[in-house]
Amino acid sequence: MIQIAVLGYGTVGSGVVEVLNTNKDTIAKKAGEEIQVKYVLDLRDFPGDPIQEKVVHDFEIIVNDPTIRVVAEVMGGVEPAYTFTKRALLAGKSVCTSNKELVARHGAELLKIAKENHVNYLFEASCGGGIPIIRPLNSSLTGDQIDEITGILNGTTNYILTKMIQEGSEFDEALKEAQEKGYAERNPEADVEGHDACRKIAILSSLAFGKQVNFEDVYTEGITKISASDIKYAKAMDDSIKLLASSKRVGDDVYAMVSPVLVGKEDPLFSVNGVFNAIFVHGNMLGDAMFYGSGAGKLPTASAVVGDIVDEAKSGSRNVMASWSEEKLDLSDIKTSRKKFFVRVYGELEKELEKIEAIFGPVEPIVLEELAGEFGFVTEEMTEAEFEEKERKYGTLISRIRIRNL
Amino acid sequence: MIQIAVLGYGTVGSGVVEVLNTNKDTIAKKAGEEIQVKYVLDLRDFPGDPIQEKVVHDFEIIVNDPTIRVVAEVMGGVEPAYTFTKRALLAGKSVCTSNKELVARHGAELLKIAKENHVNYLFEASCGGGIPIIRPLNSSLTGDQIDEITGILNGTTNYILTKMIQEGSEFDEALKEAQEKGYAERNPEADVEGHDACRKIAILSSLAFGKQVNFEDVYTEGITKISASDIKYAKAMDDSIKLLASSKRVGDDVYAMVSPVLVGKEDPLFSVNGVFNAIFVHGNMLGDAMFYGSGAGKLPTASAVVGDIVDEAKSGSRNVMASWSEEKLDLSDIKTSRKKFFVRVYGELEKELEKIEAIFGPVEPIVLEELAGEFGFVTEEMTEAEFEEKERKYGTLISRIRIRNL
Repeated sequence: MIQIAVLGYGTVGSGVVEVLNTNKDTIAKKAGEEIQVKYVLDLRDFPGDPIQEKVVHDFEIIVNDPTIRVVAEVMGGVEPAYTFTKRALLAGKSVCTSNKELVARHGAELLKIAKENHVNYLFEASCGGGIPIIRPLNSSLTGDQIDEITGILNGTTNYILTKMIQEGSEFDEALKEAQEKGYAERNPEADVEGHDACRKIAILSSLAFGKQVNFEDVYTEGITKISASDIKYAKAMDDSIKLLASSKRVGDDVYAMVSPVLVGKEDPLFSVNGVFNAIFVHGNMLGDAMFYGSGAGKLPTASAVVGDIVDEAKSGSRNVMASWSEEKLDLSDIKTSRKKFFVRVYGELEKELEKIEAIFGPVEPIVLEELAGEFGFVTEEMTEAEFEEKERKYGTLISRIRIRNL
Repeated sequence: MIQIAVLGYGTVGSGVVEVLNTNKDTIAKKAGEEIQVKYVLDLRDFPGDPIQEKVVHDFEIIVNDPTIRVVAEVMGGVEPAYTFTKRALLAGKSVCTSNKELVARHGAELLKIAKENHVNYLFEASCGGGIPIIRPLNSSLTGDQIDEITGILNGTTNYILTKMIQEGSEFDEALKEAQEKGYAERNPEADVEGHDACRKIAILSSLAFGKQVNFEDVYTEGITKISASDIKYAKAMDDSIKLLASSKRVGDDVYAMVSPVLVGKEDPLFSVNGVFNAIFVHGNMLGDAMFYGSGAGKLPTASAVVGDIVDEAKSGSRNVMASWSEEKLDLSDIKTSRKKFFVRVYGELEKELEKIEAIFGPVEPIVLEELAGEFGFVTEEMTEAEFEEKERKYGTLISRIRIRNL
């Protein structure tokens, strides 16, 4: 029997207990022995909940109990999770986590400590909820040089954008609906400004490229400025708009960014709708691959944490994670990265086209009858810096959205 | 340094050598040591190819060389691959393979022999080419009870069906084009009759359900009877037709089958086109997940074999695969499985509808102007046996296609 402790009895923590209870027998079979929750650490008490008899308020009880082999850290946030994780690893206990903030900030260090102590720091649940992506990157796609990882990594923003596309609603309405349905938090900033996706792509990039990618270095733009009119153009072009978190190797450069992007019908990410997430990977031998599933939610995320616990049980505490170096990966300035842009401007096509083509070069214009006094166009491929320069020359744009180049 | 032997220098075998050469440095980093091909077993010689100096014609050299730790069996077919694999495992060498026939037929036994000899039998490349699916089933989705695996597991048939949908062509034309492009073999039977997909779903089902699923027990229907007119109806219903290989737990029953199926727009499998493969998995905690990528081809398949070799190098020959029991899983007769059917009949809707509804119950009719003298309809959900009984009562149908119930 393997005894574990769960740190935090919130959404994910209670999910971990539920998954372990519901699938007790199949899990025991796969792990080779029964997995039992001995402690749940929480500041609160849960009178009436069968979990109450396992609740402790003091981490010392857990870290000093030699029968605890695995700790599931599902509290979120950097502290006290960081201190608890470090102490558990140093005490020879493996840690499985869903905590993206902590992995993004201290992943390299915690992986190193785990390795030195012959235990594991596992974080499948930190990116893409229930979608297996960390382990495939770590142990399946090892014959490949990974050239690109591009994901829809945030379910809240994907739900909002899907609603805007399906119902023609404005951002504010769609956000409100997401909040009412519990898909967005009351303070939605971390999601809608792209910070959540940014942390996740930093983790995936660190793992894929083998060096620390600091999330502060990742250019991040949220979806708050996307309007119902932008969506109308996207639909007219048979495209969709997705918040993509992406890192890409181009020659000697590695670019990483989070931003709303126009995605074409042929793209496997096109039909990833609602709260679903997906991660597209390009390997130099494998070609294109994509992993799709529930990116968040109590049970899918808990399922990923439990998958890590089972893996740890099977591994017999042999270190299984590839680590990435604490050395910082120097991301290239996205101003030098190349793509096409979709642009909306005021005025009439006939009057403005000459000026536009003089500045932007040949463009593909799009005029929508329902949107008078403006039109849109798609530029040729250029660097972000070139685009900014042209924008300065032209003057005020209504909006501009990047276009994904597959 | 880890020395390996490659059995068979065909498409996949030469791909394995190419992947190991091209990504030599990143692979060495991930494996923890360099991986070197010491022998290539083939009946042929390859004068002028740098591989020639490693070519041997006698398996005894490989099995008796204690420096060989891993054997990549990429010859295909049951014999001599079965004998070679068994002897390699008994000699304490791990075996990585792309050989679906062998895994489907003798997987349980070979996994058992591997376990007894403290080595591994790894077969990521046997299903879905480069798509990581075996390892996620084996070590990621372990917190879940898997209720369904449904895959587009054969690139040739998916290419043919995609062509038929995009170009309105008949099966024979699309097959000819696939053969000209090298996507279909001169004798296409194994692909178009569903036998290839059948072996793959047998492997995936055995792994997911933990007992031997014999491929002979899987109901299998190919795509040769799908016509351009069937496709016209599918398009009119906004559906696609895919060859799905599926196994599903329904209460105490497990059903497995391979057959062409109408797939709706909301289904993540809908937009899997061309030679791409995808595997949809439903777990009782995870919900829906899907894995998408190149299901075949030299380099993607070789990339999966090399991923297994790297995993083996990292595992230090500790047994990492969950095995399935040699005990046979009793599949339920698909005659008791429930679904809706799309049916085409001769005649005019007005004249036939009464008779049809008297037999089939309420239906949704579809009339296409371009197809005179016939019409189609969608039935309510019923068992396969009920449908057959109704068909007998009604008389000759033009065609019937199953409809996927998500």
